[in-house]
Amino acid sequence: MNITSRILAPLALLLCLPALAGSPSTPPPKGKDSQSIAQILAESKPWEWRKPNPENLLVMRLPSGRVVMELDPAYAPLHVANIRTLVRERYFDGLAIVRVQDDFVAQWDDPEADDGGDPSKIRSLGKAKATLSPEFTHPISRSLPWVKLPDGDLYAPEVGYSEDFPAARDPARNETWLVHCYGALGVARDDAPDSGNGSALYVVIGQAPRRLDRNLTVVGRVIEGMDRLSTLPRGRGPLGFYAQPKDRTPILNIRVAADLPPAQRPNIEILRTHSPTFHRLLEAARYPDKAFYVTPPGKVDICAVPVPVRQLPKS
Amino acid sequence: MNITSRILAPLALLLCLPALAGSPSTPPPKGKDSQSIAQILAESKPWEWRKPNPENLLVMRLPSGRVVMELDPAYAPLHVANIRTLVRERYFDGLAIVRVQDDFVAQWDDPEADDGGDPSKIRSLGKAKATLSPEFTHPISRSLPWVKLPDGDLYAPEVGYSEDFPAARDPARNETWLVHCYGALGVARDDAPDSGNGSALYVVIGQAPRRLDRNLTVVGRVIEGMDRLSTLPRGRGPLGFYAQPKDRTPILNIRVAADLPPAQRPNIEILRTHSPTFHRLLEAARYPDKAFYVTPPGKVDICAVPVPVRQLPKS
Repeated sequence: MNITSRILAPLALLLCLPALAGSPSTPPPKGKDSQSIAQILAESKPWEWRKPNPENLLVMRLPSGRVVMELDPAYAPLHVANIRTLVRERYFDGLAIVRVQDDFVAQWDDPEADDGGDPSKIRSLGKAKATLSPEFTHPISRSLPWVKLPDGDLYAPEVGYSEDFPAARDPARNETWLVHCYGALGVARDDAPDSGNGSALYVVIGQAPRRLDRNLTVVGRVIEGMDRLSTLPRGRGPLGFYAQPKDRTPILNIRVAADLPPAQRPNIEILRTHSPTFHRLLEAARYPDKAFYVTPPGKVDICAVPVPVRQLPKS
Repeated sequence: MNITSRILAPLALLLCLPALAGSPSTPPPKGKDSQSIAQILAESKPWEWRKPNPENLLVMRLPSGRVVMELDPAYAPLHVANIRTLVRERYFDGLAIVRVQDDFVAQWDDPEADDGGDPSKIRSLGKAKATLSPEFTHPISRSLPWVKLPDGDLYAPEVGYSEDFPAARDPARNETWLVHCYGALGVARDDAPDSGNGSALYVVIGQAPRRLDRNLTVVGRVIEGMDRLSTLPRGRGPLGFYAQPKDRTPILNIRVAADLPPAQRPNIEILRTHSPTFHRLLEAARYPDKAFYVTPPGKVDICAVPVPVRQLPKS
């Protein structure tokens, strides 16, 4: 039979690149699209990849393994600084993933600070600030890189990549912001815009919730271990909160990679979005494998092509 | 502390409506957005909901419970008929979910028909057809309902809802098609456009892979049990196929709901997309709760508001 395993152009494979990087270098069986993606990446030059600053990497240990996130201090300097302070105070160690809502977000925080918690047991923020000026957007600045995606967007006047994160801009308002794509890391808050302080964080695990753009502070994205969040059991309580404390997933700890012994630091590289290789990937998304696609989309959405990540061998 | 649990407007909650319908009718704590959504739905009229034809419902039994899918024979008559034939021959019983690729799809089929399978053991299609004319698009016809979404779209000249499924149209080409949103059910195929026959099916579990629109036949969508697919362990092989047969999730069986005893049939209703209530939901997505949203998105993407589903009490 001539069916099946071939199928479905796996640009989404890009998010799995850690797996890809660790897997045999032969192209996937009958997978011309991913073959071409793997081939495009295989032809990349070393300079096209950057190694993230370990000060900007958070390593979260769950019982299932680690989740690595890259923070972007250029877009959210106050929030990133506060999160680093919380992490270095070991604020998150022993807290839990308290909410997983299907097609939306996974969120962690201090359960005692949530509804139903015991306010007398709320963990101290220590030296971290309890309120912060919102960083929903940032002034457009020449110091911020901008790789425009010319395909257009439903929600923003302009979209593109900045600091290798999916981003958007409104030149008329002199504002730029990081976009809520799959894997985005954001700061939960209450109604007051300054009520987010980084002690409650969420990761997008479904369709890009673009309505959150400019309303919450995006501080980075997951670059390894995304499926450790996306496969978590969904919460059965309101908003996807777990109905029972026992259903929560404990957070063993969160560390700034720079604070880990070198051998334990993630050895990851991220494809630069101004590189010719990333440009080729976008073009392959617009006009994928002709043998399979009878009607090429011709366009690419800002959240449709995750910026590739690759694992390097342990140094 | 004024942080956290409140957060994040849960329009995505709509996909979880079965859970919502079964949960207490009080609004979620500190969740004004979902409160307003629940409130909008609570104010709906009975006529605004339709009960799907049990001939169009597939009930898949997994070890974790059931997944219910609604088929749309108006858009894919040949494929829906072939799938019903396969189901009634019990073709799928004892097969498996063979592929789960993060942020992309979960797929089931006959593992022996995939790469690495034993061609001599491939299950017979019985009376079902091995090839079918593709139904990637359908001519625009007055008999197909159309609820236009005026917000625009990156990939299609027009988007909207048809038969209460997210859909798109290109009037210049006289074509309409169902869109690959989260939860969409599609027919996997090989390179040949007529090679999809419904014996291999996939469900979208991540960001809407819109590039697949017009290139694969969408036959319906999941209306219950979506998280039984979205939380499955991701495959570690190429394209998210499981590297080991033991990692696959067995399919106990798939039935057409009409063939089940009445007591076992899903008792589900779907909100009509031409209803005032659905219109109100779209408007609430464009202009959500002012107490939280400082910059309302003002637009809504075709995949941003899942069409609500509700569980009725067992009759």
